Parts: sequence; structure tokens; C-alpha cells
Amino acid sequence: MPEGPTLAELGETELIRRLGAFAPLGQFGDDAALLGPALLGPAGGGDLQLVLNTDVLVEDVHFSAATMVAWDVGWRAAAANLSDLAAMGCRDAVGLTVGLVAPGNTTWAWVEEAYAGLTQLLGAHGGVLLGGDCSGGRQRLLAITAIGRLPGDRGGPIRRGDAQPGDQLVCTGAHGLSRLGLAVLRGEALPALAPAVQERAIRAHRRPVPRFDAVAALGASRPVGLPWRVAGCDSSDGLAAAASCLALASGCTALMERQAIPLAPELEGLAAAEDWCLWGGEDFELVLALEPTWAAALVEQLPGTRCIGHMESPLPEGPLVWSDGGEAIPAPSASFQHFG
Amino acid sequence: MPEGPTLAELGETELIRRLGAFAPLGQFGDDAALLGPALLGPAGGGDLQLVLNTDVLVEDVHFSAATMVAWDVGWRAAAANLSDLAAMGCRDAVGLTVGLVAPGNTTWAWVEEAYAGLTQLLGAHGGVLLGGDCSGGRQRLLAITAIGRLPGDRGGPIRRGDAQPGDQLVCTGAHGLSRLGLAVLRGEALPALAPAVQERAIRAHRRPVPRFDAVAALGASRPVGLPWRVAGCDSSDGLAAAASCLALASGCTALMERQAIPLAPELEGLAAAEDWCLWGGEDFELVLALEPTWAAALVEQLPGTRCIGHMESPLPEGPLVWSDGGEAIPAPSASFQHFG
Repeated sequence: MPEGPTLAELGETELIRRLGAFAPLGQFGDDAALLGPALLGPAGGGDLQLVLNTDVLVEDVHFSAATMVAWDVGWRAAAANLSDLAAMGCRDAVGLTVGLVAPGNTTWAWVEEAYAGLTQLLGAHGGVLLGGDCSGGRQRLLAITAIGRLPGDRGGPIRRGDAQPGDQLVCTGAHGLSRLGLAVLRGEALPALAPAVQERAIRAHRRPVPRFDAVAALGASRPVGLPWRVAGCDSSDGLAAAASCLALASGCTALMERQAIPLAPELEGLAAAEDWCLWGGEDFELVLALEPTWAAALVEQLPGTRCIGHMESPLPEGPLVWSDGGEAIPAPSASFQHFG
Repeated sequence: MPEGPTLAELGETELIRRLGAFAPLGQFGDDAALLGPALLGPAGGGDLQLVLNTDVLVEDVHFSAATMVAWDVGWRAAAANLSDLAAMGCRDAVGLTVGLVAPGNTTWAWVEEAYAGLTQLLGAHGGVLLGGDCSGGRQRLLAITAIGRLPGDRGGPIRRGDAQPGDQLVCTGAHGLSRLGLAVLRGEALPALAPAVQERAIRAHRRPVPRFDAVAALGASRPVGLPWRVAGCDSSDGLAAAASCLALASGCTALMERQAIPLAPELEGLAAAEDWCLWGGEDFELVLALEPTWAAALVEQLPGTRCIGHMESPLPEGPLVWSDGGEAIPAPSASFQHFG
């Protein structure tokens, strides 16, 4: 009986595209789900907009006992999830639920440490553990669903598809350090690194921080009279993936300035520096497309933020090109495959 | 190094109790999480109360290819999850997110069928697919988080701990048929059953329905002037487990009438009938403790609903006893263990 393609053959992007057909049009287009008045109904008071985000983190796919203790697994799972709330325009978290799956021989000590790390990160951003479920299973995993609020009249949603030609492309911090940390933890071949550099890199990998502060700065730096329109997502899948994703969702091309890529200084001199900055992933910064005066005000106000390019009408070279010469920026040959 | 107990040694009840220590006091006490004004803030308009519920359904723990096709897996996963929203007082669902984990060799056809079943059930109760995540993993599982609203001035929350001595214990339907269906599907030794009985039992097991209609009838049958106070939960873990759970959370003893247990007629004459009615589980009815005039009005209004006992101040025999004689109702020897 012909059963059609497997998930490994489809790949994650195509799988998500197909699953999106089961949801209302546009519902699968962002980092997380936006619940506005149409979904929450009149009891929502009209003003309330919620953001709901689900992430599944599977052992040996998203985390490994070789590179992380349980406390870091919990912290990182919560941080990655809350980063998606920030990427939608939330300034804090209401809370989250955890679906815990683990083999019966998992120790309580491991679970306790993971929840301690998770609630530590969560509490630092206004959220509480709301509930959850647990079950035995062959592999440890955490299925986390976080809920947040948009800040009402202080700021609207950040959507992937809201960029326009002429917008500046801005990112809120340096990139590549998390990937360097992973390389150190895995014992990949590297030139000698100062202990302090290794420590910073490992910390970036194990203890990412969701950029709610950047969303607050975004609201505070909006020029008077300028309507709320911000395109954005987080850089969890890599800086270049984020820029490409904004461009595709908005029907634009993102032009990145090669001299302006936000390379973490710790990567300077490494052969993989540019690759890790663009595609390393898991830096959990925000990548935004903004009207130029707003972009300039944000860069002025929020240290570490910089312009890395701009958006144009779609070019035949594709969604992501270098601004000098207009050459397409290719995806790395070995991109991350969850169903590999 | 002593690492303390494993999850299999702790058991699910003790694990959930320990995990509850990471949440605000009382947050882990119900079928699902209640998000009121204190959590949603002033933007919620004061009136809005949301319910958030996470269930993890793992292959070979909660479902099996031997007893269910993918479409049924999806339907049942959504139904079980929405049943918890009903058990908290919701009359419909806003929607849900799905975290899908599956080995790379899973076919798209399987996933498509599962999502078709899931969205069919969801759509019949007002909800939409809101978002989700997917990942490879060694075992198929669905981590579902549903969100619902309480109906504002038409009805408040249903909490496990709100029962009082003197309340009638009510359930919204017959019990044991889902367990009979599982026995048929597994080929357990059974007396000869009419084909129509087998079909009804299998259907009860594969296609449960969340009792949102019962919550609407509960609101409509409330005697004028009686304040909203309803204790309840669903009977997903078994009728007796539900009654026991209300009693424990409310500091009462539940007295069940042996002659009034809501045995599905299809079970009559089976040796296991009483056991399956009390402990079979997965009938997904509501078990409620109500002020007697309200209970009588609900029984009058909602076909299939019946009084099965009442609540008293705690008795030394335990949380769950037979009303004739006051003998404790013991848990079955082989109760279901998720971490077994």
C-alpha cells in the first residue's frame, strides 16, 4: 500500500506548512499563536491579546546530558519558550505548563533540578508554573506551553509578515557565541581559547535570556505619531534564518551588510566565525524590521542593538542577499534536521 | 552517589504532588489551570477567566496502534484534553496547540489522519488549532495544550475542593463502556457479546465526547438565588477515582450508593462489571458535588444524569465508602501506572 512520504523525507518546514492547513489561515505564520478578540470573545474586554507558544524539547535532539545538567535543561527550555513570547511583542510571561515525559528509571533529583532551573528563569520574567502533566516514555522530553499578554496600548504584536521595503533590519545583540559554547562542550577542534572566553561561550549556550527588555525598549523608542508596525522573530534558528523568514513572510528581500554582521567578539579569528554568526542559532536575540527613524531610536536606546541591513521589494536572487553585490546568502550545507 | 528515588518508585500521584511545590499554592489542585484576574492583569477586563490544560499522550502508554487508527488517536487526544476544560466549567474551547513528536520514519499519512481526527473533534466544540511544534523522537506522542474561557456571569469555575458535607454526588452518564471496548479490542476473555454491543463499546473507547453540554445544563438548572459553588472533575481516571479525588480535595468523605452505581447496561452480567464501572476509566463523564436542590434540578434537566451518593464530613474509613454499612471502597489491586 503506498503510504506517501515519511516525516524525514518531508523535512520540518514542509511538515509545518502542511500542518498549518488544519489551522485558520495565517494562524501558523508566527513564532507563537496570537489570541485576539476574535478568539477570546467579548469577555476579553476587547483589549486583551494573548500569546500562546508550545515548544517540545527532546533529549538527544534538543539537549544532551553530555553538554548540560538538568538545571540548565530546565532553564534553557523555559528561556527558549519565553523568547518566542518576546518575539511576538510580550514584555513578560503569565506562566507556563510543562508536559514531562521520562523513563521510569529517571531520578526525582533530575526532575527536581530541571524544574528548579525552569522556575528560576520563569520567575525572573514574571511568570509562574501553571500546571502540566507527566507520563512515562522511552526518552526524556519537556513539552512547554507558555502564555503571555501583549502590553495593550503600550505596544502591539510583532508579526513576521509586517515588514515593508525601506525598513531597517535590526538585531538586538551579537551572534555566534552560543554555537561556540556548544563547540567547546562537544570538544570540537578549536584554536586555543582563553578560559574566560570559554566560560562566556558556555554560559551563552546554557543560560540564554529572553529579550523582554528589548521589547520594552522597542515600545519606549517609538517615534511620536508613528503607528505600531514591527516585523520580527527571534534568532533561535540562526540570524540568517530569522532575516530570511521575515523576508519570506513579508514578501520582501532582506539585504544584509557583510561588514555589519553582529559577530560576537569572542569568535574573531575563527574560521567558522561568519558561519556561526549567521547560522549557529540559539542566540535568542530579536531580529526586527522597522521604519528607519524607529530603528535609529531603538539602536540609540538599547545597547548592543545594531542595524544589519534593510528590506527591499523582492529580488530575483531570493529572500536573503548581501547588500554589496546582491549575491544570495546560501543556507549552510549541513542545516539542522529534527527528523534526520 | 545517592540520587534518591526514581519516578517509578515515586509513582505519578507523588510526582505531581512534588512538582506542585514549584507552582503557586493551590495551582496544581484541579484538572486544569485557572487563570483569573490576578494572573491575567487589568487588561483582562476583570471578567475574563481562562482555563489552560496540558495532556501528554504517549504511544504504548496512552494509545496503541493495535487498538486505534491515527484518526482515533487524534480525536481521543483532543477529547480527553477538552474534557478537562469542561471539568473546570468551560462550555466550549478556544483552541489548542499540539507538540508532535515522532520518529522520522513515521508517514505523513499517519500525521495527517491524526490531525484530521483532532480538528474534527475540536471544531465540533468551537475550537481551532492555534499552533504547535514538532520534533523527531524515538516514540510517537502528542503534547496538547487547550485553552478555554469560563462563561462569565453565566457560570463560574468548577473546582475539586469546593464540595461540602450534605452535597449530592452526581454523575452525568453511565460508566464502564469504554473499558469494555478496550477489552474487546485487546481480545480479553469475555462472554459472547452481541455485535451491536461490541460496536457501542468500541465506539465509547475510541470516540469519547467532552461533556460541554452538561456544563451548559448545570448553569441552566441552577436554582434562582443559589450562589455558584460546584465541585467536580471528569471521570477519565475512573468514577471512583473522581469521587475520591473530590472528597480528598474538599476534606470530605464521599458515600456512594452501591445500588445506584451508574453501570452501563452493556456490562450487565459481566464478572468485572462493578470493577469496570468504578475503575475502568476513560468514560470522560463529569462527577459533581452539588447542593441538593441544584442536583435534583440537574438530574431532572439532563438525561442520563443521576445521583450516586452524597458528601459527608470526613469518616475514619477514608475518602470513599459505601453508604450502606460505611465500608471503604478499595482501589483495584492493578491500578494504572504511567511510570510502571
